[in-house]
Amino acid sequence: MSGSLVVVGTGPGKAELMTPATAAKIARATDLVGYGPYLDRVPLMRADQVRHASDNGVELERARHALSLAAAGKQVVVVSGGDPGVFAMAAAVFEAVEAGDPAWRDLDIRVEPGVTAMLAAAAEVGAPLGGDFCAISLSDNLRAWTTIERRLKAAADADFVIALYNPASKARPNQLRKAFDLLRAAKAPDTPVLFVRAAGTAEAATTTTDLAGADTGRADMRTLVIIGASTTRLVHRDGRAPWVYTPRSEKEPRS
Amino acid sequence: MSGSLVVVGTGPGKAELMTPATAAKIARATDLVGYGPYLDRVPLMRADQVRHASDNGVELERARHALSLAAAGKQVVVVSGGDPGVFAMAAAVFEAVEAGDPAWRDLDIRVEPGVTAMLAAAAEVGAPLGGDFCAISLSDNLRAWTTIERRLKAAADADFVIALYNPASKARPNQLRKAFDLLRAAKAPDTPVLFVRAAGTAEAATTTTDLAGADTGRADMRTLVIIGASTTRLVHRDGRAPWVYTPRSEKEPRS
Repeated sequence: MSGSLVVVGTGPGKAELMTPATAAKIARATDLVGYGPYLDRVPLMRADQVRHASDNGVELERARHALSLAAAGKQVVVVSGGDPGVFAMAAAVFEAVEAGDPAWRDLDIRVEPGVTAMLAAAAEVGAPLGGDFCAISLSDNLRAWTTIERRLKAAADADFVIALYNPASKARPNQLRKAFDLLRAAKAPDTPVLFVRAAGTAEAATTTTDLAGADTGRADMRTLVIIGASTTRLVHRDGRAPWVYTPRSEKEPRS
Repeated sequence: MSGSLVVVGTGPGKAELMTPATAAKIARATDLVGYGPYLDRVPLMRADQVRHASDNGVELERARHALSLAAAGKQVVVVSGGDPGVFAMAAAVFEAVEAGDPAWRDLDIRVEPGVTAMLAAAAEVGAPLGGDFCAISLSDNLRAWTTIERRLKAAADADFVIALYNPASKARPNQLRKAFDLLRAAKAPDTPVLFVRAAGTAEAATTTTDLAGADTGRADMRTLVIIGASTTRLVHRDGRAPWVYTPRSEKEPRS
């Protein structure tokens, strides 16, 4: 039997947010490759399954390792969090294929979709992604900050709801502050801002605030930040956090 | 026991792309509310479960009906396709709450995330959403075409990958042509364009082309259209369609 490679996403965290299709692919794998904490989410399904845990930030190296295993005849599953196609391993695998051994192009390589973090974050608070939206990673490890700034500005000017992935880490404490500064110059101060930490896990916690009051200290590596459009609305409730939603209709902007 | 309402998404189509969390919520429901074809995807789990099928395009009416049932003590599940927060029913439910009976704000209302169409479409072809991206609905039933045009222009100028939901229907055959005309004025003619029909189902079919050659006739109500960024790349293979991916790194634009 020749080798294969499937890139999967575990979803945001809770086991019941991993699709059955992904669980089935994991169950069939001879070899699992991934960043350690994502592999730890995957239950042991077969005693003969080999786990290859790697550090964060070595995506291309990990992808090449997975491709080598598949080329050697293994049934390989590369494990990401969330959806593997959104700021995760699927792109790294195809980048490694393009630059690597031409024989890798003949491998059976597939991607299984999953629930990406912004969908789980949105579900925690209502439906803030109900209108047109964009997803931007604030990590400038892989590209210039000026590129990210240009997209933030365009997203503000065109009134997209904005989902920010990788808003902050110990190595990058300042990007989110710079992003908020830029957005404050372009959007209303009462624009809803949501910090959703550990969305789709048992520890999920949300802070609902606005652009004027948004405190970057609320964000860490496990936080997804959502900034509303001009139409995004709060539905207030007694004694509980408001629901937040963006109507599909844009005939009545938020007053 | 008091009533509750959960808004769920079935995922793109295949049963194994519906999360176990969503299946569990459906299994517990006394009443299922949704657009007929989405309800048809849900297996009958309890003989006493009441199904309330409605037509397309009556989202707010359907939301009010679901809320009335929950207020009357039912365990209601509102069934969308894909993810319920992306161009689907969750926003309609909160809009109905905001404008409706104040008692509805005390209801237990939750949203379960799911796999939205663009993630399934991306997985069919590789990892085209690997960089920053945006999602735009081309339906102008609920908002002005000028708003949509403004977002398309911003997305092109800021070099987002673009996912187009609702690209065409019998009632709206011309929006996609207008969108391509606008994008052709702003992006390179060899920008990859993907038409992914029925992604995440057994009938999935993809056309990979470029902006110069993109034929709007490829799109219908079941199609998701993805337009690449300047960095989106094709990995060619002998005898098979190319893989398409957008690298996370933006140091080497597509040549």
